[in-house]
Formats: sequence, structure tokens, C-alpha cells
Amino acid sequence: MFQSFDVTSTPQFGRERVSSLRAAFDGLEIDGFLVPRADEYQGEYVPASAERLSWLTGFTGSAGIALVTRDKAIVFVDGRYVTQVGEQVDRSVFEPGDLVGEPPHLWLPKQAAKGFRLGIDPWLHTGAEVRKLEKALEALGGKLVLLDHNPLDRIWTDRPPAPLGRVKIQSLENAGQLAKEKLAQMAEQVQKAGADAVAITDPSSIAWVFNIRGSDVPHTPHPLARAILSANGKAELFIDKRKTGIEEEAYLTQLADFLPPTQFAERIAALSSEGATILIDPDQAPFALAKLIRDKGGKVAEAADPARIPRATKNKVELDGSARAHLQDGAAMVEFLAGLDAKAPGTVTEIDVTKMLEEARRRVGDRMQNPLKDISFDTIAGAGAHAAIMHYRVTTATDAKIEDGTMFLIDSGAQYINGTTDITRTVAIGAVPEEQKRFFTLVLKGMIAISVARFPKGSRGCDLDPLARIALWKAGADFAHGTGHGVGSYLSVHEGPQRISRLSTQELLPGMILSNEPGYYRPGSFGIRIENLIHVTPAAAVKGGDIEMLGFETLTFCPIDRRLIVAELLTEEELSWLDSYHASTREKLLPLIEGDSVRDWLIAATAPIGR
Amino acid sequence: MFQSFDVTSTPQFGRERVSSLRAAFDGLEIDGFLVPRADEYQGEYVPASAERLSWLTGFTGSAGIALVTRDKAIVFVDGRYVTQVGEQVDRSVFEPGDLVGEPPHLWLPKQAAKGFRLGIDPWLHTGAEVRKLEKALEALGGKLVLLDHNPLDRIWTDRPPAPLGRVKIQSLENAGQLAKEKLAQMAEQVQKAGADAVAITDPSSIAWVFNIRGSDVPHTPHPLARAILSANGKAELFIDKRKTGIEEEAYLTQLADFLPPTQFAERIAALSSEGATILIDPDQAPFALAKLIRDKGGKVAEAADPARIPRATKNKVELDGSARAHLQDGAAMVEFLAGLDAKAPGTVTEIDVTKMLEEARRRVGDRMQNPLKDISFDTIAGAGAHAAIMHYRVTTATDAKIEDGTMFLIDSGAQYINGTTDITRTVAIGAVPEEQKRFFTLVLKGMIAISVARFPKGSRGCDLDPLARIALWKAGADFAHGTGHGVGSYLSVHEGPQRISRLSTQELLPGMILSNEPGYYRPGSFGIRIENLIHVTPAAAVKGGDIEMLGFETLTFCPIDRRLIVAELLTEEELSWLDSYHASTREKLLPLIEGDSVRDWLIAATAPIGR
Repeated sequence: MFQSFDVTSTPQFGRERVSSLRAAFDGLEIDGFLVPRADEYQGEYVPASAERLSWLTGFTGSAGIALVTRDKAIVFVDGRYVTQVGEQVDRSVFEPGDLVGEPPHLWLPKQAAKGFRLGIDPWLHTGAEVRKLEKALEALGGKLVLLDHNPLDRIWTDRPPAPLGRVKIQSLENAGQLAKEKLAQMAEQVQKAGADAVAITDPSSIAWVFNIRGSDVPHTPHPLARAILSANGKAELFIDKRKTGIEEEAYLTQLADFLPPTQFAERIAALSSEGATILIDPDQAPFALAKLIRDKGGKVAEAADPARIPRATKNKVELDGSARAHLQDGAAMVEFLAGLDAKAPGTVTEIDVTKMLEEARRRVGDRMQNPLKDISFDTIAGAGAHAAIMHYRVTTATDAKIEDGTMFLIDSGAQYINGTTDITRTVAIGAVPEEQKRFFTLVLKGMIAISVARFPKGSRGCDLDPLARIALWKAGADFAHGTGHGVGSYLSVHEGPQRISRLSTQELLPGMILSNEPGYYRPGSFGIRIENLIHVTPAAAVKGGDIEMLGFETLTFCPIDRRLIVAELLTEEELSWLDSYHASTREKLLPLIEGDSVRDWLIAATAPIGR
Repeated sequence: MFQSFDVTSTPQFGRERVSSLRAAFDGLEIDGFLVPRADEYQGEYVPASAERLSWLTGFTGSAGIALVTRDKAIVFVDGRYVTQVGEQVDRSVFEPGDLVGEPPHLWLPKQAAKGFRLGIDPWLHTGAEVRKLEKALEALGGKLVLLDHNPLDRIWTDRPPAPLGRVKIQSLENAGQLAKEKLAQMAEQVQKAGADAVAITDPSSIAWVFNIRGSDVPHTPHPLARAILSANGKAELFIDKRKTGIEEEAYLTQLADFLPPTQFAERIAALSSEGATILIDPDQAPFALAKLIRDKGGKVAEAADPARIPRATKNKVELDGSARAHLQDGAAMVEFLAGLDAKAPGTVTEIDVTKMLEEARRRVGDRMQNPLKDISFDTIAGAGAHAAIMHYRVTTATDAKIEDGTMFLIDSGAQYINGTTDITRTVAIGAVPEEQKRFFTLVLKGMIAISVARFPKGSRGCDLDPLARIALWKAGADFAHGTGHGVGSYLSVHEGPQRISRLSTQELLPGMILSNEPGYYRPGSFGIRIENLIHVTPAAAVKGGDIEMLGFETLTFCPIDRRLIVAELLTEEELSWLDSYHASTREKLLPLIEGDSVRDWLIAATAPIGR
């Protein structure tokens, strides 16, 4: 299994570890220290060697930050982790904080003493974060102390070594563009920005630029590495050589100077002392980097990572690969859903079902000779009230039977060499109440509205987001998450900058892959989400139209549970989309699945819907 | 007439006046000077005494700015004024500039010499503008010179005196809240912001806070005046006493110290020298004010004018008054539209028709004893290709017959003591081509989508804007303006901060009045806009809904031309809204109109639409 259902937490060490950490405050002249969950790469997943927050507090959630002062220790988490943090940490040592409503930079001015000195490890915080903290401490007459070593790392004696996940070449047949072309493109961007070099600090950008993939962290196949790309075309790649074999090393040395990660700071310092202007992304790069450049006499040019947009706008090879990966994944989903339907209600648990799905993905992957490389995130599988918890992750402690008369929501994804998938289906277990079917249909209307959307070139994510909500709004309801996130090409399942969200002003560009996943959640009762991946394409011209329009093409093919659809609530256009989606699903997936009973299931599940 | 159709421009003086202006540069040590159309109140309309741009250049448009350097004179205008500026200025003296693509702060770094010194009158520019200019000049190694007198005013020998428009009390029956309560509310806001006083520099806020109306500028009944409101409740109003009669003076002296406008700067200086923190709105206040406060030792606290949100969220009395004003205006529109329909195609011109409408508003106003106080902006009236010009203003030079087989667009509004109106109708003149009717129906679908919208509390203008466009997007089309602007209560027809636009992140709050005016424009051929005013209300609860929702209530009642509607393109819900809107229009307006033929016309124009 790529996923663990264990409750892994070590709250029993919290008291002693916090004490040891506090003992280091005096020598450093600080009154408090921040322990974020993020590591120096600011990715969604961190290796075991960077699980500082969990080591210190016992809290294992995917987002959070601890503030340890001389007399308090607070673990700030967002709404989805309030219960979990209460269960995982020693409550006699830690108190919970509100990461959204009152994160450290808002908590400090209210709670900390005048003149408070806060220590941070500047490699673990972005420039954007540091600015907020500095402002907060200024208001207190205090100071942000940028430490040159991390005091937690000194007391973490049994810290695992940094990961040495094997790096593989992502071949041209999956990448669609040579790394040397991408490097030339980056050099051009650096020139355009009037800089001498760019420091690429996002491992996904390293993976994209060099056409390599790694295995240092769970679920996201990028290597923890950095690069410096110069305006003159020179490239330096900082990566531990133990991660590469002979072939990869031979490949990478063609493209770049191949240096150990320890030399990254030295090279930045050297360039800076020559007065170089170095481009960094303030939302991604560690603040320590900007500081280093300035301290050594260089100039910092702040701009978005130049690889972000090219990486987000997939080329034809990547889109074709993604389409194939989605068909394979759809076949696995169909085999899984048919298997689930064959079980009597109340006979399987959420964990059983999560295992069934991973098995289906492995089986189909092996059969199609395109093995499942990983899941793209921990599967969210919940029935009834569990489905109403937006980021529910089943554990042995919460695992429940999937009962008759409920809706079961399963949100999962896979990593294949040719693409990353992410799909959510909500299915009926026995006879589901009519009110729940009504909401299922309203969510589906939103999902169809995005699928068929046609919008002017220049539209942003926030311009599309309301389309997914109008049907729910009319019914006096809404959902409290964005409509969609960007998705990588055999990379991160949460990729920026593209998003469909009320806050996203990023223009939608052809080639961007996004999720389309409206939902509805009735706490304590039921939850619904329907998710396909889509990509932005030029829209076919319409007679009488007079401007350039874009639209979406759907990548995900898998039946949407007809038993939950109230056909009378759908318009002709919506019904027609649905029937045609199901017809395509049948046509595309039937040749890929095995077993007569599964084929019969697919045929029934994709039959046209009558009024 | 409240509107002139003359082409008023004096290009013949441009050469001489620019020369005189340049002659002043040496003494001031500047290389150029900016002449904006805005005056020190930053309103949409300026009095004759502040028409500096028109006096200097001959250009009479409502937005623009001239930059005069030693060897160049550029008049920057936006797209709608490109033709007009070419016709109105002496092209041997002035060249046109692009106010949107390359305004002065972008033009200067490219075109001006190193070390360029630009003079401005800091009373005519906001802080936001000054910041952009400073940055531009810094890049040039130049300097922004804040002049202590305006050199243009010195050479403008025949400058008209500042206006002395009569101030009237807006009685409680129309304002709905006592001025002394509003003043207390403002004092509370100042306290909350931790400031000592607020400088109110927006004349519409003065009008709202003190429950007065003025007549200094066309179409917007606010008095050019300023106020300083202190946290302790003390109020100082700076207004020329010649504008008030005995009654108004007696009223205002109850509320505030009543001081001449010349003492405003002195009082700000006095407060500042005591170290006061003074709140100003950086988007509205002249930069000179912030500078004065700082120079004299005070502190500037930048925040939105505290009167903006209370002014925008109308109370029940204002909403009821607005509803009555809209019925009266609807009656005038019906009498006008019936009269227009009675004319044979090709027999009346755009000017004729504009006059007919103003006459109808005067006639109905006199009859209902609620006289037309003013029009709320210059009527936009255009047929055929003229309708495709979004801000077309008919003049004797452009006036055209309204020909058979075209659509005629008329966008107009009125000022009544109880409310400000703004309505657009597009009507058929004879037989209109089917393609134009199709687009009319698509625009109508967008307008209905906003009318019936239900949205979560907390939604912003940008969240609603796409609803007005989806039908056009599906047809490969869009319109290049916002869906709606805020409207005042017998105040400015363009009131902030509320807007329905892709750029508006202002939350929509109950009581806000907005326009709902999608359109479609085919340059050189035809133009469509349909506009009602609406206000935000709590939405009735829906069974099964679980969050607080808002919606709109329509204020404008006037038939939408049934002859232009392709019923097959409307959904049942849209048809039902339209029929019910027409039924209400008939019921509400029939008792208010005069003449059997007009009544018959209204009955026919509001008949239900069959499929």
C-alpha cells in the first residue's frame, strides 16, 4: 500500500522535547521559536528528515505551525485538523491555535510581551511570511531573529537522514520537450527580467526543467534539489549524486554542472559577491536565500518562478499522455466501482474499499504495462457523515462500515509515468434519501457548468468559479472550498498557479490541467463531491461569435452514479452532456476492462438517462 | 434642457495658452506640467471654474489629462474619446496619448529625458496617483515637483468664479436618518480607527453626512465642500456661506462649526501641529492634504472614507423613496416610449428623441408634484451603429435620423428629491434583423440572471459579474464593460464602492443600489444594452437551504421590448421572470400614466410572452 491507515503520533515525547528546545533559547537570545510543518522546499509533502512539527508535538497533519515560547507551546492548525490536533498532542503541554483566524503573526501582537524576540530558521520560511512576522513584531517593539542554525535540529538526535530517492529521466515521449530547450527558454526569461541568474528552489520546477523525476517524498515524484540558471545559458544543478545512477548522471552532466546540494549557498554567495542580480520567487524561495544574496552584495529581483507557467501549460505530448493515463485510471475505477457494487451494504469498511481501489490501480497498471508509480495523495474515503469531512483521512481509529442508505465519497488519484490523476465519485449504497439525491444533482449541475463552459480568452480562475455554484446558490447552499486546483504532469497533484477559485486571478491558458470538483457537505449527515480533471483548450468557433474563446476538454472518464441523479432537475443541455459523457466513457473504457460482469456493470452504468 | 447638444470647444486658443504655460516653467524649475480633468474634489463632474483641461486644449470629454513639456503637449484620453480629441484640439499643437495603455506615469520613463522635473498641482491629484508618478520619475533620475500654486490658474485670466450653487436641506422624510446620528456614527468610526479626526473630502459624503444637497456641478446634487469630523464628536463644515439661505445656515450651525472653505487648510494645519492623527482616503483625498498633515507634524492614517459604506447601504426610507422615484421615472419612460412608437421610422433624430424624454420626465414630475431636479447624466441616445459606441453622446454634429430596421438604444437617468434613476432600453424601429434579436435575447438572459440571482452573504461584485455574461459567452461573445455600478440616493449616479464587475472585490451588502446593465456591441452595426436598477436584499429562505443568502430586488419598472425577444431562447424560469416583471410593470405604472393611447400601449407592451 502507498497509504498507511495507522495513527502515527508520538505525543509522549512532547514535554521533554519542548523543554530541550526552550533550554536553547538563552544562548540564542530569543523568547520563542517557530516550528513550521514546511521544509526548505516548501512542498506539500516533506521527507521524514523534515517532519520537525510531528517530532516535536505529535501532530501529523499536512499543515500547521508550532510556536514555542518560554511559557507556552501552541500548535496552530486549520479547521480540518482541530479534532486531530486535540487527539494527537499532549494537551498538558500544547494548546491549539487557529491557523486561519489568528496565525502566529496575528497572535503575537495580542499575546506576546513587549519587546518579544522571535527566532526562526530562515530556510523554512518564505519572504512573504517573514514580512508578516516582522510587521507583527515591530508592533510589539520586538524583533525577528534569523537564526543561523535550527535549534530543534540540534536536539533531534535520532533524526532520520535526508532522503536519497532515486532520480529517473522522464523521457521525451512523456515530457514532449527536450530539457535543453527548456533551459534555453529559462535563460531567455532571465534575460528578459534583466537578471543575471534565477535560483530555482521549487523541486517541481527542477523536475520539469531537467525532465527528471524523483522519489524523495510521498506521492509527488519530484527530487529535492535546486538549480541556478544563468542568463548566458549556464546551468548548475545541486543534487546528491547518490540519487542518480550512471545513466542519469551521464544525462544530467550534458545539461548542467552537477554539484552537491551543500554548494548551493556557496554558489549563490559567489555570484552575489560579483554583484549579480538573482531572480527568486518570494512565494516559494526560503527567506534565507534573499538574505544571503543581499548580505553578499547581490541584488534580489522578485518574480514568479519562470518555470511555473511553462510547466502549467502542458504541451501536446503531456496532454496526450495525461489522456491515456486517465483512461487507464478510469478502467481501474470502473473495476473498483463494479466490485464495490457487488458487495452487500454494510459488509465492507472504508479501509477495505481504499485497499480495493489501490489493488485495482495496480492490477490495471500491470496489465496495461504502465504500472502505478504511487497514489497522488492519501485517498479520502468516507461514507455518511464521514463524507461531510472535506479532508477526511480514514485511520484504524475512525474506520467504519459503509452502511446501507448512505452516500459513499471516494477522492483519490494516481501517479503514472504519463500523467497524474485525481478523481472523486460519490456513489449510492442501497436506497439513498431523496433530499441527498437532490443535492447530488445540484452538485452535478455545477460540475457540468464548468465542463461545458466557454469563456473569453483572458478569463481568470475567479471568473469561472461562480459557474460551479449557481445551482447550489439557488437552493440556498454553497461549498466552502475552491472549484478546482491545478494538476501536474506526473508531478504534484496540487500544482500552481492555475486554480478555479474565488481568489485566483491567474489567467486560464490553453494546456493547463485543472480539477473540476464542486461539492456539498451537510455536517454530521452526508457529503458529496464529483470531480473530473479537465484541461483548457481553444473553443471551437461559434457562428455569430466575434471574440477568441476558450473552453475545457475533459480528461477523466468514469461513470457518474445514475442512481443519485434526479433527472427532472437537469436541463436538456445538462442531460445531453451527461448522456454523451457516459457514451464516451463506455466507448473508451470498455476495451480496457476485464471480466464480463464488470463490462455489464459499465454498460448499465453508462446507459442514457431518460426523463 | 439639462443637456446641451452643442460641440463646445475652443481649439483656436491652444497654441497661445500652451506657450504661456511653458513660459512659467523656468521660474518653477520644471520641465513639464500635468493638467488633469479632475478638480480638487475628484468628482465625475467639475464646475466651469475647474475646466482647466478644456480651457487649455479644447478637449471637452469627461476624462483625460494633458502633459505639457517644453517641446510636446499630449492629451491622454481613453478609447471612447480618441475620435473626439482629434476633432477638438489643434493637432499642430497637441498630440493624442493613450490614457489606458500608456498614461503619463508609463509614458514618462520611455519618452522623457533623464532628470526630468515634472510639476503638478498637488490639490488636483490623489495620493495613489502621486505614488505612480514619483516612481516613474525616480526611474528617470528626475523629480516630481509639488507646486504651491497652479501656473495654469495664473494665466487663465478669464476664469469663471467658483460656483455658488444653492444648498438645500434633504429632509428626514427622504434621508431617513438624522444628520446628528450620522455625525455620531462617523465619530465612532474615527475612534475605532484610533485617529483624532477624519477629513471628509468627497462632496457626496458631505451631502450624505449633513443631509444636504447642492447644485455646484451638473447632474450630481452635491455641494463642493469639505469637513473635519473629530473623534470627540466635534464637526467643522467648510462651505461658502453664499450657498446657504437663512434656513440652511440655521440648520447647519446646529450640527457643525460653519467655516469658509479657505479655512480648511488652516484647520488641518492647526490640528496637525498639535500632533493629531488624521484619517484620509488615499483614493479620494488630494495628495496636498496628506502632505500638509505630515509637513505640520500630524500623522496620516489612510483608510476608506468612513461615510462610503453607510452611504452605499441605503436605509428603508431611502429605498422606499428610490422605489417611488423609479415608478415615476417608469411612467415618464412609458409616455416617452409610447410617443416614440407613434412616430414613423426615419422621422425623428437622436436629439429630437432625447428632448422628448426630458420633456416626458418634466411633465410627469410636474403632474406628480415631484419635479425633475436634473438628469443624472447626459443621455446616451443612438440608433444603429451609434448604439455600438458605448458612451455615445449625440451632438448637432453627429445627430442622425433613427432609421427603419435598426435598434435604438437610450440610456438616461433622472434626479428626483427621493432618488436617482438610471435606465437603458433598446427598442425596435421597424423590422429588425433576426441576428440582432438573437443578441438582444442573449443580453436579456444575462440581465435576468442578475435579477434572479441568489448568492451567499459575503459574495463580492466580481462573484456576480460572470452571471450576466454566460449566455453571451456560449454564443462566442462578451461585452467590454462592467455589469453594474453603484447608484446614490439623490446623489451621484456613479457611486462607490459597490459595483458588479470582474475587478470589484467589495462585498455586496443589503441596501446597496446597483445598476444591472449587460450589453452587446457590434461596432459599425448595432448596439444593445438593457439596464434596470436593483438593490441588495436578504433572500427569502429556501427549503433545504442552510446558509444566509442575499438577492436583488428590482427598482426599475418599464417594458422591455417584446418585439426583440426570441422566446425560444429563454428558459421557463427566464420567461416566467419576464412575464411577471411585465405584469408588475403594468400594475404599478398604469395608474400613473395619462392618455388612453399610452395606456393601451403599456397594456400591449406588457402582455405575457407566448412560446
